[in-house]
Amino acid sequence: MSGGVVLELFNVLTVQQARTTLADHLTVRTKETVVPLLDSLNRILARDITARDDVPGFDRSTMDGYAVRACDTFGASESLPAYLDVGGEVLMGQAADGTLQPGQAWLIPTGGMLPAGADAVVMVEYTEELDQRTIGVTKPVAPGDHVVRRGEDVAAGSLVLTAGHRLRPQDLGLLAAVGVTRVPVREPLRVGILSTGNELIPPTQPTTPGKVRDINSYTLYGQVAEAGGLPTLYGIIEDDFQSLYQAVARALAANDLVLISGGSSVGTRDATAKVIAALGNPGVLFHGIAIKPGKPTIGAVVEGKPLFGLPGHPVSAMVVFDLLVRPLVESAGLLRPRQKFPLRAAITRNIHSATGRDDFLRVTLRRQADGSLLADPVMGKSGLISTMVKADGVAHLPLTKEGVEAGELVDVWLF
Amino acid sequence: MSGGVVLELFNVLTVQQARTTLADHLTVRTKETVVPLLDSLNRILARDITARDDVPGFDRSTMDGYAVRACDTFGASESLPAYLDVGGEVLMGQAADGTLQPGQAWLIPTGGMLPAGADAVVMVEYTEELDQRTIGVTKPVAPGDHVVRRGEDVAAGSLVLTAGHRLRPQDLGLLAAVGVTRVPVREPLRVGILSTGNELIPPTQPTTPGKVRDINSYTLYGQVAEAGGLPTLYGIIEDDFQSLYQAVARALAANDLVLISGGSSVGTRDATAKVIAALGNPGVLFHGIAIKPGKPTIGAVVEGKPLFGLPGHPVSAMVVFDLLVRPLVESAGLLRPRQKFPLRAAITRNIHSATGRDDFLRVTLRRQADGSLLADPVMGKSGLISTMVKADGVAHLPLTKEGVEAGELVDVWLF
Repeated sequence: MSGGVVLELFNVLTVQQARTTLADHLTVRTKETVVPLLDSLNRILARDITARDDVPGFDRSTMDGYAVRACDTFGASESLPAYLDVGGEVLMGQAADGTLQPGQAWLIPTGGMLPAGADAVVMVEYTEELDQRTIGVTKPVAPGDHVVRRGEDVAAGSLVLTAGHRLRPQDLGLLAAVGVTRVPVREPLRVGILSTGNELIPPTQPTTPGKVRDINSYTLYGQVAEAGGLPTLYGIIEDDFQSLYQAVARALAANDLVLISGGSSVGTRDATAKVIAALGNPGVLFHGIAIKPGKPTIGAVVEGKPLFGLPGHPVSAMVVFDLLVRPLVESAGLLRPRQKFPLRAAITRNIHSATGRDDFLRVTLRRQADGSLLADPVMGKSGLISTMVKADGVAHLPLTKEGVEAGELVDVWLF
Repeated sequence: MSGGVVLELFNVLTVQQARTTLADHLTVRTKETVVPLLDSLNRILARDITARDDVPGFDRSTMDGYAVRACDTFGASESLPAYLDVGGEVLMGQAADGTLQPGQAWLIPTGGMLPAGADAVVMVEYTEELDQRTIGVTKPVAPGDHVVRRGEDVAAGSLVLTAGHRLRPQDLGLLAAVGVTRVPVREPLRVGILSTGNELIPPTQPTTPGKVRDINSYTLYGQVAEAGGLPTLYGIIEDDFQSLYQAVARALAANDLVLISGGSSVGTRDATAKVIAALGNPGVLFHGIAIKPGKPTIGAVVEGKPLFGLPGHPVSAMVVFDLLVRPLVESAGLLRPRQKFPLRAAITRNIHSATGRDDFLRVTLRRQADGSLLADPVMGKSGLISTMVKADGVAHLPLTKEGVEAGELVDVWLF
């Protein structure tokens, strides 16, 4: 089958269509494994976590003061304090030695366990010590005041974290609170990265006329690692069918996902498409997506594994990675990216954009005195990596819009 | 010196005052080291990087087509094409074999090196092949059209990245482009983490009356790791002067920064302050900051190393970490945090807040059809870790404001 034939079968898809098409053909989901709690940061939870215990396991004071029955303080004021007997003292980390009786107040530290019988805490600031055994309460409390109830943070039996969630620092804290110290997570997605193009040399080599150093292997390695994947570089592959076929087959066998970048020329892109078509089914799902930069993108699935032919231009490859590849890597193949919100910023120049195409514009941001943001476009061809280094993020001009006027609000995704 | 005396010497500072006070007393800056390019992601650059070469090193075509002298195409149209002799072909990755003569066009692929004498590229779509040796150009080009000029991405000798910058995927790409494969970076900031409080037990233990599992060691470990630091846990330390003093001294000797969390009760907080005062100079710089949650925070510097007494409430400890500790960890002590912009969202409830205090409110976000965001407050005491798990981020109510009304825009910092 010739490359030309392959190409004619596929249309240019929108980003949303490309995502849907990929999802329809994907079965990738990495294996489950168990890691110690401290190693679980940024990992994808493999199972729902249900609390075994109440957190906290008892009613707990949130203030230094006295545990009381709230009803014993009703009507108390500075001029007419409620007098209570000091019935005992709660020691930190210990159950109270006895039950609080009506008319009693027990000294309690912040974090201390309420004695049985008590239902509120009076802050020490609203008490006066009359003698060793008696205090005056100068302000009434309601039941539950200055108390964290047993199970108020987490109730035993409740679902605290769901499978597919990426674990943040606070999630580690919650797992510690419910006593989960061995955490079921997904293995990271293994991503093989290849660069093609006879013009490429490794960054360790001096440049010579006609040669440029490989950039995409390194930006993609960084993007994969940042998304929680396990990147492996396969280097610069010769731009002929046999070399490319062998290298991609090898990368595909050892990884869950393969990225082939480069092939900025039509000839190389066709060669990549031919290689993918020869590797297995269903093969190429789309060739070209309606975005700028990033149009010459190939999306494929081979035996259940996704394979992308990314554009050679560094900016284009990075933008396409963010849109189509990152969600897969971030969720270890579960296609459930974490929710994330773009910034809203006013664009500072009129920008033309064709309808029917998603445009992604590099921008730097400036914050105004009123807190609003301005987005200044960073102009420059998509082959220029320096433009991505200067920019704070990319503004999205959706495919329904024919450009934006200066002052219009756009979504900006930060790097 | 008793804890009481120490406390009286210090006022409650605003967040900004606390930052300035710390900066005035800090000399921390981690050592310089060199890592391979692929290991440099998220590391802090230790030196300015200057480009040795132009990127690209030659004029490069951005299209498949023909290299030409632009002036030879002026006036060309579909009805009256400019006829040019095909003088040669540029092969990918090679210098052209000769010089383009007036009246000539050389076949060139995307990414190919322009022959000497050429100053523009005509896209193949605007040419017609007349015979093996002649083409017609149907649309004129200007000098520089479809060409990336030598040094257009990066000019030799220019400063491409500055010391203190945190390396992102695109920065790895730029370093590859300029041939820097051994990267000078700062060592990560070593952070020792201790928890105090007689009520605490490790998460591996079953809870008993009065005891709760240590949460802060795990949230702080995650926050330090996420900020690029090297966290070490020192466990739960007994709540007496001698134990705490020895543990903190040990942590301080082995780390660049020490976090002591817990001590939600006044007694424990005072013990922490006493221990810090005994460790060295200048000691405690502030005790209490004007924020909510997070007020009972101790900031100290001992022999040039920062030391924080963080509140025992998990939410408070996380918020204070973000405000005061993260910038130090992220910049390996250089106190030059990366620029970051908050989201702007309309709060959905009236929220009271005292003036003279920075309030941080946990919120979940909802995106509206017009792209704007709504922030729904997550209510709950700052001792409840589950509220941080539910929230998308924290809204900042600045100290100049006395609360916000529903519909007002607030800054939201995402987790």
